[in-house]
Amino acid sequence: MRISPIVSMRKLLKVSTCCLLGAGLTAGAAMAEDLSTMSKDPSQWVIPLGNYASQRYSALTQISTTTAKNLHPVWTFSTGVLRGHEGGPLVIGNMMYLSTPFPNTVFALDLNQNGRIVWKYTPSQNSDVIPVMCCDTVNRGVAYGDGKIFLHQADTTLVALNAETGKVEWSVKDGDATKGETGTSAPLVVKDKVLVGISGGEFGIQGRMTAYNIADGKLAWKAYTSGPDDAIKFDPEHTTSMGKPVGANSSLKTWKGDQWKNGGGGTWGWISYDPALNLVYYGSGNPGTWNPTQRPGDNKWSMTVFARDLDTGTAKWVYQMTPHDQWDYDGVNEMILADVPVHGNLTKALVHFDRNGFAYVLDRTNGKLLEAEKYDPAVNWASKVDLTTGVPKVQTAYAPGDQGADHNTKNVCPAALGSKDEQPSAYSPKTHVFYVPTNHVCMDYEPFKVSYTAGQPFVGATLSMYPPKGENNLGNFIAYDVDNGKVLWTNHETFSVWSGALATAGGVVVYGTLDGNLKVVDQKNGKLLYSFKTPSGIIGNINTFEHDGKQYLAVLSGVGGWAGIGMAAGLTEDNAGLGAVGAYKSLSNYTQLGGVLTVFGLSN
Amino acid sequence: MRISPIVSMRKLLKVSTCCLLGAGLTAGAAMAEDLSTMSKDPSQWVIPLGNYASQRYSALTQISTTTAKNLHPVWTFSTGVLRGHEGGPLVIGNMMYLSTPFPNTVFALDLNQNGRIVWKYTPSQNSDVIPVMCCDTVNRGVAYGDGKIFLHQADTTLVALNAETGKVEWSVKDGDATKGETGTSAPLVVKDKVLVGISGGEFGIQGRMTAYNIADGKLAWKAYTSGPDDAIKFDPEHTTSMGKPVGANSSLKTWKGDQWKNGGGGTWGWISYDPALNLVYYGSGNPGTWNPTQRPGDNKWSMTVFARDLDTGTAKWVYQMTPHDQWDYDGVNEMILADVPVHGNLTKALVHFDRNGFAYVLDRTNGKLLEAEKYDPAVNWASKVDLTTGVPKVQTAYAPGDQGADHNTKNVCPAALGSKDEQPSAYSPKTHVFYVPTNHVCMDYEPFKVSYTAGQPFVGATLSMYPPKGENNLGNFIAYDVDNGKVLWTNHETFSVWSGALATAGGVVVYGTLDGNLKVVDQKNGKLLYSFKTPSGIIGNINTFEHDGKQYLAVLSGVGGWAGIGMAAGLTEDNAGLGAVGAYKSLSNYTQLGGVLTVFGLSN
Repeated sequence: MRISPIVSMRKLLKVSTCCLLGAGLTAGAAMAEDLSTMSKDPSQWVIPLGNYASQRYSALTQISTTTAKNLHPVWTFSTGVLRGHEGGPLVIGNMMYLSTPFPNTVFALDLNQNGRIVWKYTPSQNSDVIPVMCCDTVNRGVAYGDGKIFLHQADTTLVALNAETGKVEWSVKDGDATKGETGTSAPLVVKDKVLVGISGGEFGIQGRMTAYNIADGKLAWKAYTSGPDDAIKFDPEHTTSMGKPVGANSSLKTWKGDQWKNGGGGTWGWISYDPALNLVYYGSGNPGTWNPTQRPGDNKWSMTVFARDLDTGTAKWVYQMTPHDQWDYDGVNEMILADVPVHGNLTKALVHFDRNGFAYVLDRTNGKLLEAEKYDPAVNWASKVDLTTGVPKVQTAYAPGDQGADHNTKNVCPAALGSKDEQPSAYSPKTHVFYVPTNHVCMDYEPFKVSYTAGQPFVGATLSMYPPKGENNLGNFIAYDVDNGKVLWTNHETFSVWSGALATAGGVVVYGTLDGNLKVVDQKNGKLLYSFKTPSGIIGNINTFEHDGKQYLAVLSGVGGWAGIGMAAGLTEDNAGLGAVGAYKSLSNYTQLGGVLTVFGLSN
Repeated sequence: MRISPIVSMRKLLKVSTCCLLGAGLTAGAAMAEDLSTMSKDPSQWVIPLGNYASQRYSALTQISTTTAKNLHPVWTFSTGVLRGHEGGPLVIGNMMYLSTPFPNTVFALDLNQNGRIVWKYTPSQNSDVIPVMCCDTVNRGVAYGDGKIFLHQADTTLVALNAETGKVEWSVKDGDATKGETGTSAPLVVKDKVLVGISGGEFGIQGRMTAYNIADGKLAWKAYTSGPDDAIKFDPEHTTSMGKPVGANSSLKTWKGDQWKNGGGGTWGWISYDPALNLVYYGSGNPGTWNPTQRPGDNKWSMTVFARDLDTGTAKWVYQMTPHDQWDYDGVNEMILADVPVHGNLTKALVHFDRNGFAYVLDRTNGKLLEAEKYDPAVNWASKVDLTTGVPKVQTAYAPGDQGADHNTKNVCPAALGSKDEQPSAYSPKTHVFYVPTNHVCMDYEPFKVSYTAGQPFVGATLSMYPPKGENNLGNFIAYDVDNGKVLWTNHETFSVWSGALATAGGVVVYGTLDGNLKVVDQKNGKLLYSFKTPSGIIGNINTFEHDGKQYLAVLSGVGGWAGIGMAAGLTEDNAGLGAVGAYKSLSNYTQLGGVLTVFGLSN
């Protein structure tokens, strides 16, 4: 639906010559440069995680350790949608763009008018997709590029909207929701392509990353998580793992029969890109089913970091973090690209805080594993990761598959939702420190036999979750140093910190809590500088921008997501919601549903 | 649902000895004194409209013409319910109480913890009530008394909840939703009684005011709007109208046959009380149907101000403002009791800004009509009101009934939703000025024949609404002086001002706009001192309180109500929503649905 804009979009967008030229081109290599350049302008927020390196860092300094106490909301905007609001708003010129959970309405808001709606777009989608969306009906935001806003709908349609008018320029169906394939992730625009992952690991989908041409939505390449080499776009001689060529059929030979066809490996997390290497990085999720006794083998390349050539999709290197998963430790969390000291050596690193509780540091040029340390002391499923083989040393007592079929394995840490889930970390290139929102949850895990039926849950395990023994906080916000592989400081939080963090040159880190508080803390020690109780629990990411010379923070409230699924979907039984409902049941004493954007600024 | 309170409720309530004693009593005359006394403590907000006089005035002075610019939100709370949020929160000690639209969840929030939920109560109600709720599924708030919170549910159940725990103490069914009787209004507690009106004028209900004993919910009295003298609790010799006894059968003789049995006259507005006179005041709504040609006669006592003895329910005096209604000008708007100069004479006045566009000033001791002036210059259905007879001089050209059956009468002002609807005004005893949120809307009105079927709409007219010719603002916020019967100043607003106003001793008036802005203006001239864009359109009332020595404002956002019914109910046709959809269709360019409480305070 188009609403007449009040002022010319050219004025609204306030884009520089470089970008208008870029927007004028129908496609072309110029685009990557445009977004790279635009993302260096800290007044805007043009890429879902702030920049291609997924650092969620801003060079803005007005909001600082000394001024944070003067923050307050300056305007707010209800999205009109309940359930979980993940992701965060983009800011392009004077416009803000955000998307909602199903029905995935996209709003274009005018920053010159306190968020007056310039246009909105609500796709027509069959609501049958709702029950096949695992862990709430979230959408993690839109992408911008080539004068278009890209939305990955719940029903997997990727739609390109004219950024000025909201008019549909093209759309393409990326998957089949009747088979449990759904869209929840933010696309990433690089050069002439838009990349999009897929959700559905709990429905036995075949995960893949897909690149479409931004000009017309035509398929550029598609690379599966599991399957034959051509399907997974592996070059047996040149695609490497732990520094060695993977060889032929590296995926097929790790599955029993054709189980890879329902092998999961969703790609619903965040995507990063290194312009110098022309590589895109992302992770794959859990293998199907969750019952490991039904699924022998390493189940490659589930639970894997992928580095793929942007132009061709061919994998340069891979690293599987959790072979033969027995815990649902999806490997999809953000891949942070940072040139950072690791054991004293400045390194072109990829840093990844995995669901399995290990913080992985790899050489992003070649996939070599440099470090893998626990970032939550509760982690017990593995004692360590062998840096030579890359293989974790599994603790059998906490391995449901090793305990035999139908055994209820107790006190496994972390729980299935991991020491961290999709909530993206922040990294400051000034401090070289990573600021990480975490979960602090353990579980009982009881596998049961399940058969595959298209579009039906392919889970095969019953879970219950709770805090580690003797503790009562379900989350922490931590600062982490990869140089020494150590946690620098920890802020305990009542619930999982399910919000994306922001680090700035002002010396602050900002995150939100599941009970609804936006918190600004000191990068040095985590000390609270400012807190505000937003309308609902925060599972969105805090983004920042500058408008008319002033710095602002923007965050979506709206409790939900996996940790909030009990409230979001109205579940009441402890074992519903894949085990999350029980652990988080007191959440409703603190906050209620409701999607609201809050924009914060400094007092004059 | 009960949630374990963190601290003892005695501490939370922080009530004085007088009130704890009161709460300890099961019932008794002491209660009226308690609430009267409590309402004089400006740190609390214990009665829906602030005090028994419905003045919506606070003696607090911290938020003033000089400090208002330092206001900002201090905490927020999403109710988890979309659709229209009318009414406003009560504040009793350290606790805040509020209710939502259907499903009518009541929240008890702890002011010591930024609104942490102490308990919540969601009634079990059949959702079949939703389609029979005229003009959105609103609820105008709860009442407090005797240690209980009283909620009038959509399905007409009046429930008494323990204020400490949320536990149901008693409940009573006040009406029958299958016949279109619904609950939307805030109850009023006076002495040992709780009074409650009824909605359903569009469904041919029989309107009445009902008093229940607060101790156990037993019926105290019930007084109908229309019918035999005993049913309407009229004493033919002592109940007066315009200073004269009404005589026998004053209602029956103004209806054709037994049409009074489906005569409407809902009582869904606000209730006032004068402790010195022991009289309760309220108004009755439209007669059924909306087709005046089907309904000859004055249709008494629809569209009437009632003054009834609290203890017996017997009417002391009545005044019918719109005999034989042809426009749906319900007489239910708030009755403001003020000792105010009228034509130079200090008067025990009842001041009422009616939907029909006249501001009525009556002597509240005897019902004598002192003044009736238009408060919106657009009003054209009547040229004036005869102060001797009390009868309006109807302009036939704008009287649909006088134009004959099925004629589409054009450009009638005001529209059916009136120059003002339920949105309550504020009155300052310091300035003797009334601050009135108004609509500025006209209509085409086309009656059609309708027959009564229980539970089915009994409307019989098609409407379309639009601003007065040559104008484009649908609302005004005005200051009105009853001494001279004149508007003092006018703030034009894009949409109807559908929020309840607040006047304070700080010299400010506060109101909200349908597009979501909270506005603090100067009582002297309406000059804007502070504005904040809340998450959604405001149709709630702004209340104020003091906590830990600081003054706060609190308001519910959540667009909806009659003016917002298009958005709230997802209507798209211009003639749906009883004519409101077309006029307000651009509202969705400004705001979206969402129920959020915003609490404002001053910067340190």
